[in-house]
Amino acid sequence: MFTYERKVHFEEVDAAGIVFFGRYLNYAHEAMEAFFAGVEGGYESLIMVRRIGFPAVHVTIDYRAPLRYGDRIGIDVDVTKIGKTSFVLRYGMVRQDGVDVATVEHTCVCSDLRGPTKIAFPDDVRAILQKHLVTS
Amino acid sequence: MFTYERKVHFEEVDAAGIVFFGRYLNYAHEAMEAFFAGVEGGYESLIMVRRIGFPAVHVTIDYRAPLRYGDRIGIDVDVTKIGKTSFVLRYGMVRQDGVDVATVEHTCVCSDLRGPTKIAFPDDVRAILQKHLVTS
Amino acid sequence: MFTYERKVHFEEVDAAGIVFFGRYLNYAHEAMEAFFAGVEGGYESLIMVRRIGFPAVHVTIDYRAPLRYGDRIGIDVDVTKIGKTSFVLRYGMVRQDGVDVATVEHTCVCSDLRGPTKIAFPDDVRAILQKHLVTS
Amino acid sequence: MFTYERKVHFEEVDAAGIVFFGRYLNYAHEAMEAFFAGVEGGYESLIMVRRIGFPAVHVTIDYRAPLRYGDRIGIDVDVTKIGKTSFVLRYGMVRQDGVDVATVEHTCVCSDLRGPTKIAFPDDVRAILQKHLVTS
Repeated sequence: MFTYERKVHFEEVDAAGIVFFGRYLNYAHEAMEAFFAGVEGGYESLIMVRRIGFPAVHVTIDYRAPLRYGDRIGIDVDVTKIGKTSFVLRYGMVRQDGVDVATVEHTCVCSDLRGPTKIAFPDDVRAILQKHLVTS
Repeated sequence: MFTYERKVHFEEVDAAGIVFFGRYLNYAHEAMEAFFAGVEGGYESLIMVRRIGFPAVHVTIDYRAPLRYGDRIGIDVDVTKIGKTSFVLRYGMVRQDGVDVATVEHTCVCSDLRGPTKIAFPDDVRAILQKHLVTS
Repeated sequence: MFTYERKVHFEEVDAAGIVFFGRYLNYAHEAMEAFFAGVEGGYESLIMVRRIGFPAVHVTIDYRAPLRYGDRIGIDVDVTKIGKTSFVLRYGMVRQDGVDVATVEHTCVCSDLRGPTKIAFPDDVRAILQKHLVTS
Repeated sequence: MFTYERKVHFEEVDAAGIVFFGRYLNYAHEAMEAFFAGVEGGYESLIMVRRIGFPAVHVTIDYRAPLRYGDRIGIDVDVTKIGKTSFVLRYGMVRQDGVDVATVEHTCVCSDLRGPTKIAFPDDVRAILQKHLVTS
């Protein structure tokens, strides 16, 4: 299990006083960057040097409890599906009091960013995906 | 049909050069604010004075084509479901060249923000929802 | 006088309930994009096609009154200085109730973004700057 | 010397490919939250429970070199002035290659957020400020 930890920052709430519903995808993406840190040169190098990225094609988010300023979350990252050029990441977000606040499912397509055009996974990307593949 | 128009701003793209996948929910929320502008005192007053809001409980996003800096989108807003305390908005995002770039489905719960706790729809909210309800 | 109008959006406030102090630079930049809309192909084309941009080298912001969700601002844009490769924009932000909420001074350097390296102003950029130059 | 470390995230760059000039204030604020972590209950509690905050009244930013996706910065935080109800923080931002990328000066007013109205510093806030006061 890979887990990324994050605090809610001062400017991430909205006028209703809770974390804005779109911010959960910023949190998910930060967790994804950390999840792929082990690729050659790191995730930043994948994007900036190798020009390979993972644009989203589908996202679902289930919100179960609000987050507020000062909350801390742990984000568990799993791989629930690996296809030929796509994969699905699942992020389970748990608040410091143990409450399961949200689940994000994130379908990505491995792409040459110069297009973008679909490409097969590089070996180092595939290795990380397979290591964290869950069967349920 | 209610449509909200928006340009992609300079700082809304990511290191892959396309609009960050979470930003689509900022665009959707802006469209929602405009969609509900006709409630008594406006949407801002609903939130700030009446302390009623619509926290998300579920979101799905389908991404079909990228957006880049300078693109303009039209966001068509429909209501696809009205329940007792929840409703579903659907946002169809179309780029200036006619390409259907994304669809967002957004399930909200009508809430007293002082809790938040579920409440029945105020009449002015219900009227707007019913006016834009689609059956397909 | 060039003026850009903007509403405060739902997710632009912070946990203190007022617009986050960094957001004023997003507002200023939006006003700048509109201010330069008349360059050949528009500001987006300047950045994306001609690869010319105006990175900031210095900014000052004076905050005089808070902004809250639902406020509307008018942003008056002036040019207070034109140098060989740099210029200074001044943004005066006025709330819907007439209160002068903030002033931003923004020193930019005309740059070839492929470097970035300083370059002389293109004629169409210089024409817009000179049209709005104020002497006080 | 207090130092806060931060990576540049994927979505923090703009269409020119460098960190958006307003983002530096997000970085500064994160450093400020960490700087004040030692107040009773933490900075979040100061804001959310004690309802005391530090709205900005003046900011200056000097930008000396760009930041790009994947860069890491160390932010040194000093106090350069302590008044009766205001103080000045200075943030020196240094990139992983040792380049001094930016300096932010941030004048804050200690405020009861229920107003906001100016108030004298609580003792725990004053103690942290005095510990990091520099004389140059």
